[in-house]
Amino acid sequence: MKFVLAPDSFKESMTAKKAALAMEKGILTVFPDAECVIVPMADGGEGTVESLVSMTNGEIIHTEVLGPLGELIIAHYGLLGEGATAVIEMAGASGLELLRPEERNPLLTTTYGTGQLIKDALDKGVSRFLIGIGGSATNDGGAGMLQALGVSFKDQNGEELPFGGGALGQLHTIDISGLDARLKGIRIDVACDVTNPLIGEKGASAVFGPQKGATPEVVHVLDGNLAHYAEVIKRSLGQDIAHMAGAGAAGGLGAGLMAFLNAELKRGIDLVIEYTGLEEFVKGADYVFTGEGSIDGQTLFGKTPYGVAAVAKRHHVPVIAFAGRIGDGVEPLYDNGFHAIVGILKGVTSLADALESGEENLAFAAENICRVLRI
Amino acid sequence: MKFVLAPDSFKESMTAKKAALAMEKGILTVFPDAECVIVPMADGGEGTVESLVSMTNGEIIHTEVLGPLGELIIAHYGLLGEGATAVIEMAGASGLELLRPEERNPLLTTTYGTGQLIKDALDKGVSRFLIGIGGSATNDGGAGMLQALGVSFKDQNGEELPFGGGALGQLHTIDISGLDARLKGIRIDVACDVTNPLIGEKGASAVFGPQKGATPEVVHVLDGNLAHYAEVIKRSLGQDIAHMAGAGAAGGLGAGLMAFLNAELKRGIDLVIEYTGLEEFVKGADYVFTGEGSIDGQTLFGKTPYGVAAVAKRHHVPVIAFAGRIGDGVEPLYDNGFHAIVGILKGVTSLADALESGEENLAFAAENICRVLRI
Repeated sequence: MKFVLAPDSFKESMTAKKAALAMEKGILTVFPDAECVIVPMADGGEGTVESLVSMTNGEIIHTEVLGPLGELIIAHYGLLGEGATAVIEMAGASGLELLRPEERNPLLTTTYGTGQLIKDALDKGVSRFLIGIGGSATNDGGAGMLQALGVSFKDQNGEELPFGGGALGQLHTIDISGLDARLKGIRIDVACDVTNPLIGEKGASAVFGPQKGATPEVVHVLDGNLAHYAEVIKRSLGQDIAHMAGAGAAGGLGAGLMAFLNAELKRGIDLVIEYTGLEEFVKGADYVFTGEGSIDGQTLFGKTPYGVAAVAKRHHVPVIAFAGRIGDGVEPLYDNGFHAIVGILKGVTSLADALESGEENLAFAAENICRVLRI
Repeated sequence: MKFVLAPDSFKESMTAKKAALAMEKGILTVFPDAECVIVPMADGGEGTVESLVSMTNGEIIHTEVLGPLGELIIAHYGLLGEGATAVIEMAGASGLELLRPEERNPLLTTTYGTGQLIKDALDKGVSRFLIGIGGSATNDGGAGMLQALGVSFKDQNGEELPFGGGALGQLHTIDISGLDARLKGIRIDVACDVTNPLIGEKGASAVFGPQKGATPEVVHVLDGNLAHYAEVIKRSLGQDIAHMAGAGAAGGLGAGLMAFLNAELKRGIDLVIEYTGLEEFVKGADYVFTGEGSIDGQTLFGKTPYGVAAVAKRHHVPVIAFAGRIGDGVEPLYDNGFHAIVGILKGVTSLADALESGEENLAFAAENICRVLRI
């Protein structure tokens, strides 16, 4: 009997790997001879590096980079087991969570540190990148990242632009002659679940600017600056990125990645499925167990359990999903590969205790579902 | 496909019947053609009247009786559908919950109201009684109940004893000539899960007196009074009840029922199983669903799901138990007919909300277990 255990992390309670190990513990109590294939998952957001590194026996690389406000920080990325792939979460170098609320200022924040992580991985001989771009503190169109990789953004006096979305209005010339030559022919996959364009009402500044600290006036400035940035890119590189789907992700980092590095934006869960090789494991399995801290109607929109279930459905393998919280609107999941959705809580308790007991509760629930399967 | 749905009540959330209906709702979502046999259960305690009346399409009889302190109250009992059986919970007439904490005084409290309920049922032509004796406020050896049924307890001046365990020390003569003649040949089953003797260290007064309001000094008086009561009974009726198992239940009501009314004490769940005819329904069923508000190591000691599982085990029918709270020590249940134990909570929530959402949560959990059974 073969189980594939492919949960996401249960946020603030257990990593995806710990969740999978808890499931395994429950399963082996009932079926001691079962084969359990552990495939820690993620959806391209937080936990993606950890899950893929753990899955491939890769390593976590720590390195000093510039944070969102140009301060020195230690950030990390993942080097997968085969040695040729880097997994980077931009939030680790240029993320909103690195700043105190009063420090948030998208006029000044830069993606420079993200570029430094890419450069560090190139130094390690990497030829493929998976970059997760959720949780950014920035609105600089990816200019900072590109500066770290050798692109030059000058104003009309020939001076290099300072960091931040506020400076892009001064952009006059782009010089890509210094762009790191090792990026040629490198494959960059960007995990991106939003389709916002770079500018306009649904653009980076208007939609995501406020949560990064932009007032309505600042949003107006930032949006104008990104429009100008897009125009200069169009003139210099012949690429029109202003209205491409996903260009507005991570304060325009999506645009920068596409225009300069030929990156492809894909749904995060699809990339993680590809990078983990999940589909091969699912073929011929008897059951797939997945799960996430919370499962609800939003799970349909590209969350990990949904992606896992879609793969399993193609191979007619039943999926049981476990969650700490089951919200409203889960019914459509049953038509999308989910055979059952199971809550793991053992009783009324505080959130802190529920998070603390996650592994024990998940093991117990998985065990009891196996007891039902054994009937 | 045939399901037997035999839960206890989920205390403060749903009656046993409502729990069974919630299970049925979940099952029919997955197996629209399933046959669901609804057998609301109880363990002889609170909810026993409601479950048995509901199961047999009987009726609830309301009647005025004397409460624990002799005040008039409206109490009720159940008349089962066939019309010949009464189900009485002594706590409804003589229970601790009828008193405010400061009113609790086992020197004064009487089981008279419980006797009145028996008398009222006799008036309705009943020939069989199931009496649940948990939750008593009394320590009167059942003397009050017997007074209501025509027994006379006199002091040495020939005066009838007043109510309460405090008066039994004055008992000199017992006269059973007035005992309601209709009680001859009547079968009285008493649901009793304790085996305490009437007197001594493990007796009614020492063990249960304090929770009924007795100080150590009062416990001493009450215990001496019950010892005297037992002696007079031995002398008058030739019955030695002082050390019989269960004689100490409900402040000695167990003793009174056995000595005067030839009642038999049995485990509550066994009686409910007998009175509901559960075993006949379980024969040939594919699954039994049971449950209770809380399932833990204590469930082994005569709780409803344990009794239900024992019946199902005899007939090799798998049992799935649902609970709002799953506590420690449930492992031995798996060797006692439980195939799986399933928590019904959907997430971290307040107790009030969990109780409020009981039916919805139970229906959801039952539905998803059926989805697993369908795999």
